[in-house]
Amino acid sequence: MTSRKMRIGLSIRGYGYHPAAWRHPDVQADGTFHVEHYVRSTQIAERGKLDMIFFADGAGIRKADNPPGSLERSATDLVEMEPMTLLPALAMVTKDVGLVTTASTAYNEPYNIARKFATLDQISNGRAGWNVVASWSGWEAQNFGLDNPADYETRYARSEEFVEVVRGLWDSWDRDAFLFDKTSGRYFDPEKMHVLNHKGRFYSVRGPLNVAMLPQGHPVIVQAGASDYGRELGARTADVIYAIHDSVERARAYYADVKGRMTKYGREPDQLKILPAICPIVGKTRAEAQAKFDELQELIEPLVGLARLHGTFGDLSAYDLDAPIPEEALGDLELRSLSQQTIEKVRRERPTIREAYLSTGITGDARIGTASDIADEMQHWFETGASDGFNVTPATLPGGGADFVDFVVPELQRRGLFRTEYEGRTLRENLGLNPIGSSRGASRPV
Amino acid sequence: MTSRKMRIGLSIRGYGYHPAAWRHPDVQADGTFHVEHYVRSTQIAERGKLDMIFFADGAGIRKADNPPGSLERSATDLVEMEPMTLLPALAMVTKDVGLVTTASTAYNEPYNIARKFATLDQISNGRAGWNVVASWSGWEAQNFGLDNPADYETRYARSEEFVEVVRGLWDSWDRDAFLFDKTSGRYFDPEKMHVLNHKGRFYSVRGPLNVAMLPQGHPVIVQAGASDYGRELGARTADVIYAIHDSVERARAYYADVKGRMTKYGREPDQLKILPAICPIVGKTRAEAQAKFDELQELIEPLVGLARLHGTFGDLSAYDLDAPIPEEALGDLELRSLSQQTIEKVRRERPTIREAYLSTGITGDARIGTASDIADEMQHWFETGASDGFNVTPATLPGGGADFVDFVVPELQRRGLFRTEYEGRTLRENLGLNPIGSSRGASRPV
Repeated sequence: MTSRKMRIGLSIRGYGYHPAAWRHPDVQADGTFHVEHYVRSTQIAERGKLDMIFFADGAGIRKADNPPGSLERSATDLVEMEPMTLLPALAMVTKDVGLVTTASTAYNEPYNIARKFATLDQISNGRAGWNVVASWSGWEAQNFGLDNPADYETRYARSEEFVEVVRGLWDSWDRDAFLFDKTSGRYFDPEKMHVLNHKGRFYSVRGPLNVAMLPQGHPVIVQAGASDYGRELGARTADVIYAIHDSVERARAYYADVKGRMTKYGREPDQLKILPAICPIVGKTRAEAQAKFDELQELIEPLVGLARLHGTFGDLSAYDLDAPIPEEALGDLELRSLSQQTIEKVRRERPTIREAYLSTGITGDARIGTASDIADEMQHWFETGASDGFNVTPATLPGGGADFVDFVVPELQRRGLFRTEYEGRTLRENLGLNPIGSSRGASRPV
Repeated sequence: MTSRKMRIGLSIRGYGYHPAAWRHPDVQADGTFHVEHYVRSTQIAERGKLDMIFFADGAGIRKADNPPGSLERSATDLVEMEPMTLLPALAMVTKDVGLVTTASTAYNEPYNIARKFATLDQISNGRAGWNVVASWSGWEAQNFGLDNPADYETRYARSEEFVEVVRGLWDSWDRDAFLFDKTSGRYFDPEKMHVLNHKGRFYSVRGPLNVAMLPQGHPVIVQAGASDYGRELGARTADVIYAIHDSVERARAYYADVKGRMTKYGREPDQLKILPAICPIVGKTRAEAQAKFDELQELIEPLVGLARLHGTFGDLSAYDLDAPIPEEALGDLELRSLSQQTIEKVRRERPTIREAYLSTGITGDARIGTASDIADEMQHWFETGASDGFNVTPATLPGGGADFVDFVVPELQRRGLFRTEYEGRTLRENLGLNPIGSSRGASRPV
């Protein structure tokens, strides 16, 4: 069967993507301090034949204790293993699933990043992927000697050059550069070593890279750009885009726009996989699924909920949680960086504070229902030009990932929408992407 | 038995420490491109109950093609996996052996390094060690936007502040900071979180670290300082020092000097382990050991040999290899940064070019003989104030490491000089170092 198949990733950060995930009875509350937690999630992804696991990351705790008492009640974006160090460990206990992590172009050096992803690609036999981020937060900047991050234009321009340098370094050695010829004493052919000598606006990097023979040639490049600049960069350079959309219509418009931009760079549309986020809450019945979701929602501490509203409405901790958001907080709305859409919605619906915070978090991406319901929705997006697959951001880990793999994946497989066995050796091959540059040669001398 | 025991590390970089190691019949010539190569060496170290494996590193190829044709014939310091990415993989296939790697204070950020070693400490359950280097070479500088490395004073001052920041970040959370209290909804106790707010000459780092509960509190700090400044820094802050000495007398003088400097920092001498390099070439008989060594020496390509002399004597490729080093090359000797000792030795002995290059490389640290011979020598150093143990730099890998573990280690054990079982859970405990700061708590909530 050669019909088009979905590409699916599983986000494995933290305790899952629901703000109260760590409090769920099935979740190990100190899981993120132990490698076994991540091993479980990654092996679940592989059991489901998913394309990859994905690890979001920030170089710092990116939030304040607003209102006071909220920080100590939230386990999200707090402390966690550093993923570039964690993924090689996960490579050793899996065989096929891709291993993708975020790494920042703001607080790293291209030579180091090129070496690390090249090494991860070797250790995993071609399963490495890099989610390129430019780091927006002041919290991170202050861990790296800056008061604030660079402005938007600078961050993106630097990011673009950073990726260009890394790719150049990955091309330092041709795939057949190494001779390993014990008899003649020649280890490599110097004609097949390339010194980059990059001199650009932000970076000056000589090369060559001192890591060579990447199984994928280039590890897979992932981006997440919603802005005009981000769309253009994705169309030009990304292999995968993670997207977040609040409706299938907006997802379709984004998909068409980004794919349409690829032609001018000489790229085929199917060489970029656009994967919107989805948070499946699966039950044997719809009622069971809804009960699972309600249980999680009830575990959100009011202070944690108020913290999630703080950026939008300011401190609401003095108000009755079950009264509508007060007029004082609404009065400031235009001053904040809110979409007109959000303002209108709040003005129209007048939710209580509790209703407002319960609607933050995963609910934008949540799909609550039976495996068949969720597969219907995924199929609808996939077949109407809204996506090439999905990035699953489970409510809890590893349980939410296991539910998806054990219930939704078989349904997608029955419908012929998802693989039953890995097709390729590498992540690049499994994603259906064209080979790039060098790959580990067939010859393995003694 | 409470007698003093040796501490022993195994260097596992590349194909081993002999310049022709990759050409040896027992060595897999593309081994360093495959994780299995490093797994083998690390498991050999663990089988021998060694304290740790050690991975040297540079962020670039630190040599030129001088004379032309030499670079392509040398596999040393060329391409290799990036060790900070490799060690987490090795953690997954071992249980007790310590995992130490070099990381540069010149081309990294303290926040990133603190996170990565903290994560390695978690993944390995307390076996992480960091060999702090300040990076001397222009080759590396040019991969990071600089023409040359910073001057000596700046490199060391920056290195010192870097380590201070990293240690401060490791102290961001008390060992009992995390409550994991699902019932109250409190994840941690904010009184036990510490914001570093470091502002120094080179670094400004807010904190707290977003990785917490390191099993060792602080990963083990390794240094290699021969200069006055390096000795002082080691005495003040290192847990382990790797040293290279060309005689037991000089080793003793170094040992006494560094240990003597510790008192003024309030440190007990046994809280710093000084481990000189040793390259054991083991045979069942002395003749067999010598034959092993000769076989390796004969595999040194003349161009590779000449490259090893290039820094000292310039290009000798136009001369007869079996004639004495020519007068023209000697004439320049005083102009180069050579010790008076070397100049006198060359003037006195007038070695041929071939003899000269055969005497570079591992031969300074080589001990060629039976297991008993080598144990005698180690015991002599250990018992006469020259060392607390050794860092084994095997001629070939994994074979040279296996020879040491299978023949020399049992002899040391018979003599009561080396452990027969690991005493502790962590590298710090096995090295006999005092606990530092936090360690993973006893409580493991559901």
